[in-house]
Amino acid sequence: MDIAIHNSWILTLANEKLGIIKDGTLGIEGKKIIYVGPSEGFNHRSADIVIDGSNHLIMPGLVNCHIHTSMQLLRGGAQDLPEIEWMNKGIGPLAKHVTDDDILLGSQLGVLEAVRTGTTTFSEYARNVENLVKEVYLPFNTRVVATETINEVSQTNKASLKPTELYEFDQSKGEIALKKNEKLFRVFQNEDLVTCLYGPQALDMVSLQTLQQIKEKAIDQNSRMHIHVAQGRRERLQIEERFGKGESTVKILNRENLLGDFLIAVHCHDTDDSEKEVMVYKRSKMIGCPSSITMIDGIIPPIYSFSKLGGDVGIGTDQAPGPGNHNLFREMRTISMLTKSMMRDPTAFPAWEMLRLATIQGAKVLGLDNDIGTLEVGKKADIVTINLLDSFLTPVISNPFHNFIPNIVYSATGKEIDDVIIDGKLVLRNGKFTEIDEETIIKKANLRAKEIYENAAEDWKEAGSKMVRDVKAGLL
Amino acid sequence: MDIAIHNSWILTLANEKLGIIKDGTLGIEGKKIIYVGPSEGFNHRSADIVIDGSNHLIMPGLVNCHIHTSMQLLRGGAQDLPEIEWMNKGIGPLAKHVTDDDILLGSQLGVLEAVRTGTTTFSEYARNVENLVKEVYLPFNTRVVATETINEVSQTNKASLKPTELYEFDQSKGEIALKKNEKLFRVFQNEDLVTCLYGPQALDMVSLQTLQQIKEKAIDQNSRMHIHVAQGRRERLQIEERFGKGESTVKILNRENLLGDFLIAVHCHDTDDSEKEVMVYKRSKMIGCPSSITMIDGIIPPIYSFSKLGGDVGIGTDQAPGPGNHNLFREMRTISMLTKSMMRDPTAFPAWEMLRLATIQGAKVLGLDNDIGTLEVGKKADIVTINLLDSFLTPVISNPFHNFIPNIVYSATGKEIDDVIIDGKLVLRNGKFTEIDEETIIKKANLRAKEIYENAAEDWKEAGSKMVRDVKAGLL
Repeated sequence: MDIAIHNSWILTLANEKLGIIKDGTLGIEGKKIIYVGPSEGFNHRSADIVIDGSNHLIMPGLVNCHIHTSMQLLRGGAQDLPEIEWMNKGIGPLAKHVTDDDILLGSQLGVLEAVRTGTTTFSEYARNVENLVKEVYLPFNTRVVATETINEVSQTNKASLKPTELYEFDQSKGEIALKKNEKLFRVFQNEDLVTCLYGPQALDMVSLQTLQQIKEKAIDQNSRMHIHVAQGRRERLQIEERFGKGESTVKILNRENLLGDFLIAVHCHDTDDSEKEVMVYKRSKMIGCPSSITMIDGIIPPIYSFSKLGGDVGIGTDQAPGPGNHNLFREMRTISMLTKSMMRDPTAFPAWEMLRLATIQGAKVLGLDNDIGTLEVGKKADIVTINLLDSFLTPVISNPFHNFIPNIVYSATGKEIDDVIIDGKLVLRNGKFTEIDEETIIKKANLRAKEIYENAAEDWKEAGSKMVRDVKAGLL
Repeated sequence: MDIAIHNSWILTLANEKLGIIKDGTLGIEGKKIIYVGPSEGFNHRSADIVIDGSNHLIMPGLVNCHIHTSMQLLRGGAQDLPEIEWMNKGIGPLAKHVTDDDILLGSQLGVLEAVRTGTTTFSEYARNVENLVKEVYLPFNTRVVATETINEVSQTNKASLKPTELYEFDQSKGEIALKKNEKLFRVFQNEDLVTCLYGPQALDMVSLQTLQQIKEKAIDQNSRMHIHVAQGRRERLQIEERFGKGESTVKILNRENLLGDFLIAVHCHDTDDSEKEVMVYKRSKMIGCPSSITMIDGIIPPIYSFSKLGGDVGIGTDQAPGPGNHNLFREMRTISMLTKSMMRDPTAFPAWEMLRLATIQGAKVLGLDNDIGTLEVGKKADIVTINLLDSFLTPVISNPFHNFIPNIVYSATGKEIDDVIIDGKLVLRNGKFTEIDEETIIKKANLRAKEIYENAAEDWKEAGSKMVRDVKAGLL
């Protein structure tokens, strides 16, 4: 046995419940869990590494179902903006100055902060995602679900178009991206930490023909199609312009047989009740990004609605320039709070449900629920330990109920994580990375970001967002 | 000079803005700030303690305008409950078993976690608050605004009453509490860290006669009256029963000349637009507790409305068994996010406004804005430093704007605080308490809480809240 964590509280999250074990031990051999159960009668001493789990809680690593880490160096670059300015006047003028190297550096920063707060699986959505997987995710020993962005919008005239003017499609652009996406499956076929999805960006950015082609490929390869769906006004205007007044993304996806269990739909806030129903009925999966969509659009993503309809739902953090960071502990609390306020019901989205949403439910959405998401013998060893002696989690009670269940959702910040094990390997130990050089990454990120922002300063000012006025007013 | 922090980013928050200073130094002599400005030309070496502030941000300590720490050992004791069950079936059966010693221990735990996350001023509202001040707040060297709870509801029959049955008042109970409240002013008159407020609990719990008496006393002593206002259905039912159908707390307070700048009204979620307007018009102050009220009632406190009407507003954390903990960094982000979603406007409650809300605005509500809330020469040295090299705050940019302004509100967890100075004294240094014995408090809290919950187990089960059913279902 390679690792044993003993004498700990354990949440297995197996069998549709929390699976609370007192004085439990978890044993790991190679990449897999070989034991999870009572400490008594189990010999943890035969393990190469023995971790004293007393005063700790062990639970499955968290699953971030939708993350873009590429623009991480632009954290804090576009906040408190009108939705209509966010992309073109906020992030856009800065992003133009982010180089390929900056993307890798930013991704390192994003992944390390997420691992520190308990994320072990990353569903990364990016252009040239192969690079991120090879240069960041695999060196960091993190589990990654790689999606290559496929976008057919011709760049030549996009910037000058009004929202109501139809984007032109450039089929060859889609073909190149699709080839990259297909290549992922070959390149990483023997890589235990990597699975792949297809990534048509959105219905307003990819032709129906390409979408159908992608659907076939996804089904053939037992994979899924990860697509942004019903993201708001800009998308709706394009859809109506292209398909006719009154049309919507979900209506068209349904009519074209593009809803199904092969579909993973992200965001979905511009959907009505019947659209949500048909999506769940057709067994499409849904991902919501609570902090991101609330910060950028002022909209609570419909995670609760899809969940109550019985759909498979996961959560993600999107990109840091919107919500601030990639901390799934924060997202669990955030979507619970937002939902309680939206429903005017303090019982909505209770703690136990949030723990499942961020683990096994996310794994299900990504098609990984046989491998991860719960602590069960035979599953991959993706595990986090939480220090229960942190003041925020004090006291710890187990009779007449386990008060640490609400406390890890509503009081923890994510920084109470001590150990992170991914695929059987200790990535974080006692709050310190075993191999990732955090200090150097932070230092480099500061140096490069300074240059990026200075290079972008004129473009950014010229774009003239609300933030530019806030700077003049001494408020930013 | 006693302390100098040099070479730092500073937010003074003076003059209605953020007051951003680059490469700044802050000098402290005794309890006061004697210098805040550029490092250049200022000799920091003459200070007894020199703190290298590079890669740090200095800002005013945060002001928690409404906190009850007494029930801190019950953290996680009442979550995800229907509002109607929260008090009587949730916290109530547990609270009965909390002793006076437990209250002190809990308060220690609550105060230390709040200090760790940057709170330097605590507006504590409690029965026998003198004890908490003497046993916790002063030994911890924290600034406290002490409010004694004045409640006239007769305990003899309260538990057996339905919400629509009128509480009986016991005037002698009110008199005893009022005497205690008055005594505070004498006991702490020479105590620099302590100011006092009057604390009639709520209009449904105190007679109008007593309220008028308290108002006179508050005005006489240049103090204020800190009262829960319009807390929801239970209060409304009592008010209608006592004063007649269609009556409301704010209508009565207005008619009785009990609105004014001597009034600090907490919660206020059960108020309509015209009631909010009259409160602001009469210059009453308002306090909202974002996480607490959202968690317990599923209601977003009307902080934004009062603020937009031009009222003086502060924020607080209420008590831990509702929201989880006392972290004002979390509250800044929480109320911004909740408000953005409520207004469907991502520009609502921007970062700069949250920073002012949690500092100088809070100080104003408590009548302490001449002493604290900004970093200015002559003000009390209540200061926190934030480590900008934390991964969550990386990168740090100052051109063309200061990205750390949104990042400390939307990305920080509160645990990035390195130093806390209160009244010129270092309470936290490099993330460690200088005198508070955190480890022992946590250990004691765990031991005592175990006993409290075990003693309370039968009462709690018998009360039969939703949580009892969740335990049976393996979800808690």
